[in-house]
Amino acid sequence: MMKQIEGGVTAAMGFFAASTAAGIKYKDRKDMAMIYSQVPCRAAGTFTTNLVKAAPVKWDQRIVKETGTAQAVVINAGIANACTGAEGYGYCLETARAAAECLKVPEDSVLVASTGVIGMQLPMEKLKAGIAAMAPELSDTLESGTAAAKAIMTTDTKKKEVAVQFEAGGRTVTVGGMCKGSGMIHPNMCTMLSFVTTDLAISAELLQEALSEDIKDTYNMISVDGDTSTNDTVLLLANGQAGNAEITEKNEDYRAFCQALNLVNETLAKKMAGDGEGCTALFEVKIIGAENKAQAVTLAKSVITSSLTKAAIFGHDANWGRILCAMGYSGAQFDPEQVDLYFESAVGKLKIIENGVALDYSEEEATRILSEPEVTAVADVKMGDASATAWGCDLTFDYVKINADYRS
Amino acid sequence: MMKQIEGGVTAAMGFFAASTAAGIKYKDRKDMAMIYSQVPCRAAGTFTTNLVKAAPVKWDQRIVKETGTAQAVVINAGIANACTGAEGYGYCLETARAAAECLKVPEDSVLVASTGVIGMQLPMEKLKAGIAAMAPELSDTLESGTAAAKAIMTTDTKKKEVAVQFEAGGRTVTVGGMCKGSGMIHPNMCTMLSFVTTDLAISAELLQEALSEDIKDTYNMISVDGDTSTNDTVLLLANGQAGNAEITEKNEDYRAFCQALNLVNETLAKKMAGDGEGCTALFEVKIIGAENKAQAVTLAKSVITSSLTKAAIFGHDANWGRILCAMGYSGAQFDPEQVDLYFESAVGKLKIIENGVALDYSEEEATRILSEPEVTAVADVKMGDASATAWGCDLTFDYVKINADYRS
Repeated sequence: MMKQIEGGVTAAMGFFAASTAAGIKYKDRKDMAMIYSQVPCRAAGTFTTNLVKAAPVKWDQRIVKETGTAQAVVINAGIANACTGAEGYGYCLETARAAAECLKVPEDSVLVASTGVIGMQLPMEKLKAGIAAMAPELSDTLESGTAAAKAIMTTDTKKKEVAVQFEAGGRTVTVGGMCKGSGMIHPNMCTMLSFVTTDLAISAELLQEALSEDIKDTYNMISVDGDTSTNDTVLLLANGQAGNAEITEKNEDYRAFCQALNLVNETLAKKMAGDGEGCTALFEVKIIGAENKAQAVTLAKSVITSSLTKAAIFGHDANWGRILCAMGYSGAQFDPEQVDLYFESAVGKLKIIENGVALDYSEEEATRILSEPEVTAVADVKMGDASATAWGCDLTFDYVKINADYRS
Repeated sequence: MMKQIEGGVTAAMGFFAASTAAGIKYKDRKDMAMIYSQVPCRAAGTFTTNLVKAAPVKWDQRIVKETGTAQAVVINAGIANACTGAEGYGYCLETARAAAECLKVPEDSVLVASTGVIGMQLPMEKLKAGIAAMAPELSDTLESGTAAAKAIMTTDTKKKEVAVQFEAGGRTVTVGGMCKGSGMIHPNMCTMLSFVTTDLAISAELLQEALSEDIKDTYNMISVDGDTSTNDTVLLLANGQAGNAEITEKNEDYRAFCQALNLVNETLAKKMAGDGEGCTALFEVKIIGAENKAQAVTLAKSVITSSLTKAAIFGHDANWGRILCAMGYSGAQFDPEQVDLYFESAVGKLKIIENGVALDYSEEEATRILSEPEVTAVADVKMGDASATAWGCDLTFDYVKINADYRS
């Protein structure tokens, strides 16, 4: 009964967005966005595991943990507000306070998120002017959501949003989201930020649990370059405007919501992996036949982060030895001489190795399969029924170019 | 009392080398080498930790473990003999047998090493012809050692050898070695292989212990791309020809040997890091002021393997945020707000951050320092006296080019 619909962060009832060109770093484009709910929301969040946490991460973590309630989010691109000390944290408070005044909400109900260069301080006058400009422009149209999705981009080449609907307690519930990130995993510019809104009524505990569980299979399974950002943030806001009876136990409605949330998160996560810095292809790695989930995850992540495998995908080269090698150094136990490996894309599927040894496959056919914009490697380790899927992208000249001289 | 001398694997007394163009994969260049000692050697070895181990790794591990004795090594470039099943392991035996016949030594005293493409079988007729051609050409000249160092190269751009002398028990002892590898860490072509010979007399146990301890600070501290090869091998042969009383305890002579071995291994390791695929600079990361060695190693390795940091070094960009970020996600505990960071090279040293916050340093001066062929980042975490150094290289367009279409 779940269906995908148009829209993003404004798709759910009672959510508004606005965006503006505050001139923080970029010229001639929008670089700030705001999300607002007409009523207070239950707020769940997951944040970077990096020991070096940006100021806005610390701000949001405190609010999610202490109150679990929020009504607005202020986002800027260009400067990450990371490694900025007490001054930087003070700017989070100042940002929240400015938005709180404009929106007539408590300052502790304003979440903040930043992405961009590490180590620079935010130009607060520009930020405050941006907030003042956005507040009167807040709108619940799809267009305002899309404009916000564009405003938070950094090295992203495409805006990223998605929305789905399902039924809960006889009511239509919408979950929509937007994100930015040319990978989960870019410390300077390309922090992953994701904002998901829903009009579902659900308890704070279950909202956080649904998010915490789902990120394991979605955002935590993408990688562009192995560098975990200081700013990674996923925020999930639920304002209850759908009018369903509040979900307080893990019933059918909860499972329906988890399914919808998974579709939103997986779609956004794949959009980030497929728009990885400089990349030409979305690369998917499926481990099947694993003994347990942890083993499957370890193997899939090791392959998706292997520079040599990523470079081979860029070259459309069926260099399966690199995949087996990356599985071998992952730390997970398996028998290399039991592994079957396939390459797959929209134009076909080809078995490359069987029981650890290469088949007499056609290199030409393999290259044809690997020349598609979305390619998959499937490894069957034949130990059980568990599986995992990871998403990444190829390693290209442009990745190096983008990152060799990012700051200038 | 230790001094560096000319030469490599033939520098120590009683060691001979030969090389030949067997036509295994490359045209118009040598691709096989042989090392031979006039008397049986104590043999120590350390090998890849990859679960997927190449056939020659399994062969050598057995010999080092079961007999600890060897008299010859046969090496080929072009094909790695990895993921080749029982057939591939049989070819190790066949290679050893062919060399044993030519050299009149037991087949269990012949070690083998391969580097190149994974998954292809060795052309045994060519290998055997190569062995027959090399055996009568064995020579203890420096030139034959250098020719062998060139013959084992794959994507390496420079041959890598070094030798040192020290005194033990009134005798002059020589330790020399050669290696290949555009990084520790390249599964297909660029396996790390290192061969160190010495005329020292030393017990088998202490020989292995000295090697096992030393690789932690040398070969295990380099990284080019995070991919641990299926073929990585370090072999250390000691033939006792220096005439010193055999070292059987950890006395002054043992410590002198460990120092010499460290210089040889560190020099070879740095040569590999500085010749990483496509690289333009050797990048050194020093963590000082750590609480303990393990913490320092974890932090240093996290920075040296960060793609974003490596790309910034290629761009001569003092992007210190990426270094702090990589320290933050390493898993080691420290206080980001206590960290001092410096960039250093032959032309100067510059303090970039103090207590986690950027100083008002000159970007121009930083770029000048980072434009040298060897650059160092020093991070002081101010927790204790432990330190660690890791070596790697920058991430460049050429790295992608070399690896996008390696097999054709």
